[in-house]
Amino acid sequence: MTSQTSREQREALIGSDKMQGAVVYCSDGSRIGRIESVMIDSASGKIAYAVMSCSGGGAHDRYPLPWSLLSHNLALDGYEANITDEQLKGAPKYCRDEPSDWTSREQGQMLNDYYNVAPM
Amino acid sequence: MTSQTSREQREALIGSDKMQGAVVYCSDGSRIGRIESVMIDSASGKIAYAVMSCSGGGAHDRYPLPWSLLSHNLALDGYEANITDEQLKGAPKYCRDEPSDWTSREQGQMLNDYYNVAPM
Repeated sequence: MTSQTSREQREALIGSDKMQGAVVYCSDGSRIGRIESVMIDSASGKIAYAVMSCSGGGAHDRYPLPWSLLSHNLALDGYEANITDEQLKGAPKYCRDEPSDWTSREQGQMLNDYYNVAPM
Repeated sequence: MTSQTSREQREALIGSDKMQGAVVYCSDGSRIGRIESVMIDSASGKIAYAVMSCSGGGAHDRYPLPWSLLSHNLALDGYEANITDEQLKGAPKYCRDEPSDWTSREQGQMLNDYYNVAPM
């Protein structure tokens, strides 16, 4: 076992409290925001999507992102988002200060449809 | 669709920030602790286990619990744990103030073995 493999295995599980606040990077390495929380399907125990607060744009905007588009990068100590600027510009979002109804599975499916990814 | 079904669907997804701090009840209705965080397998996006701080016993003790043993109870606004007092007494635990190595998948499997549950 290499030390790299050992490290990956050791850090295979991440606490939700540590995940919250982690920086999200775009494919080109620029910061696009931070993970504010992850939405979990209580029955299956799977993440439906992550909620990202954006670095630019409206400070109160929250972007729900399919979890499958985020990959943990140990070196960056953050997450890389496999999304384009164009996708983000027209993406579903909601305002932090307004009541949102983003707690149904249908919303998660709608997100997957927008980003054209399969459910995890 | 009944209003109950509608409510369940609406609250199918729960934010990690809301999950943290939720009360955990035993099968007999007594409080046994609170969810401090959930440990997530970054690759699969699935919860491996929840970390519970205990109401009784050592205030610094943290009990990792398999997610499959917890069920969300809307009426209680918390989680019911399908575990017995006996199981909890001898259960794996660690101290909040000590470094823990509970971030490997093997630890999750060890927990499942102790509580005799299948991986989710």
